[in-house]
Amino acid sequence: MTTSTSSWTLYLAPGTCAQAVHIALHDAEAPHRLHVLDFAAGEQRGAAYLAVNPRGRVPALVTEQGTLTEVPALLTFIAQSFPAAKLAPLESPFRLAEVQAFNSYLCSTVHVAHAHKRRGARWADDPAAHEAMQRKVPANMTQCFEHIEDDVLKGPWVFGEDYTIADPYLFTIAEWLEADGVDVTRFPKLLAHRARMLARESVQRAKAALKS
Amino acid sequence: MTTSTSSWTLYLAPGTCAQAVHIALHDAEAPHRLHVLDFAAGEQRGAAYLAVNPRGRVPALVTEQGTLTEVPALLTFIAQSFPAAKLAPLESPFRLAEVQAFNSYLCSTVHVAHAHKRRGARWADDPAAHEAMQRKVPANMTQCFEHIEDDVLKGPWVFGEDYTIADPYLFTIAEWLEADGVDVTRFPKLLAHRARMLARESVQRAKAALKS
Repeated sequence: MTTSTSSWTLYLAPGTCAQAVHIALHDAEAPHRLHVLDFAAGEQRGAAYLAVNPRGRVPALVTEQGTLTEVPALLTFIAQSFPAAKLAPLESPFRLAEVQAFNSYLCSTVHVAHAHKRRGARWADDPAAHEAMQRKVPANMTQCFEHIEDDVLKGPWVFGEDYTIADPYLFTIAEWLEADGVDVTRFPKLLAHRARMLARESVQRAKAALKS
Repeated sequence: MTTSTSSWTLYLAPGTCAQAVHIALHDAEAPHRLHVLDFAAGEQRGAAYLAVNPRGRVPALVTEQGTLTEVPALLTFIAQSFPAAKLAPLESPFRLAEVQAFNSYLCSTVHVAHAHKRRGARWADDPAAHEAMQRKVPANMTQCFEHIEDDVLKGPWVFGEDYTIADPYLFTIAEWLEADGVDVTRFPKLLAHRARMLARESVQRAKAALKS
């Protein structure tokens, strides 16, 4: 444990994108505590959590310097705070930007495409509109992952030989595909990436921490 | 002109989020050329542009090292490539993460809320659903900017005394508010920020470059 991170607390909920940050904390061997929110009870919209993150979303990371939110920002923060873990190409602004661009795409396009299945109320009040959104989720997620499979995922990791903060984020969102009605057998590189991730100690520790 | 950036080309279209990157290039005094896409003619979905960015979106920045996309990644790349311009708190991973978190929020929540006005076909095929999405845009954008006005915007710039890459991005998205049906008089700090941005030479140069 280092002094600088002994007080970090990750606010998260099972099955959310916060898993990407949780895995990265284990990749970095960053000392941390967990605060698991009860989404079913609406804890993310309660006054106590809104004082942590007024947006009412996870993840949030409370550090000795203050609170940070948003997965792409947190992933880069972890990589920069633990450079010895080599979780991003910090020495090259261009290569870091490639990693950040992919994480931004996951955040603003892929996660958003997924969110239209169960979070349609964010963008329309009409239940018929929510159903129309749900119907398009399988096609949209398939299209996103065709692009990822064909144009992005180099293997063994997203950016080739070096594992980066793009890997736990892709893994986390890709775990939603079956429930989103996507035929994952179309994506052999992605399935190999998933198996590779599940074999990592960081992933196993992050998943075990939420089961205990 | 420096050798390292003499060949950068920014692909953009008027009225899009690419303006944020265009302004930042002027803030950094980064030599660059523009390639303006004709969205009305669907040039962003043509084979020539898909070879530049297979996602068919702007902005894209072609550099001597390769092509980069996604506004948050590009803004940080420009700040890191031109450290003398002091466009981000590069010396502090925490403070950089605060800037990146806000840019990620603009990208994945605020821009997405706006996009439901005219890009509803991305998320549903039913025209009635598109209309339902359009009806909710004013309320959603108002809610986002209440949060920005009350919880984020410190003044004179987003993060206080130091101008950062968050400023051209906020300015660009905030320019859409009136057309989105939002009563901007509710946001005096935001309007002061807009006036301050419009007085900057970088903003004036970026806007002039698209008019010539």
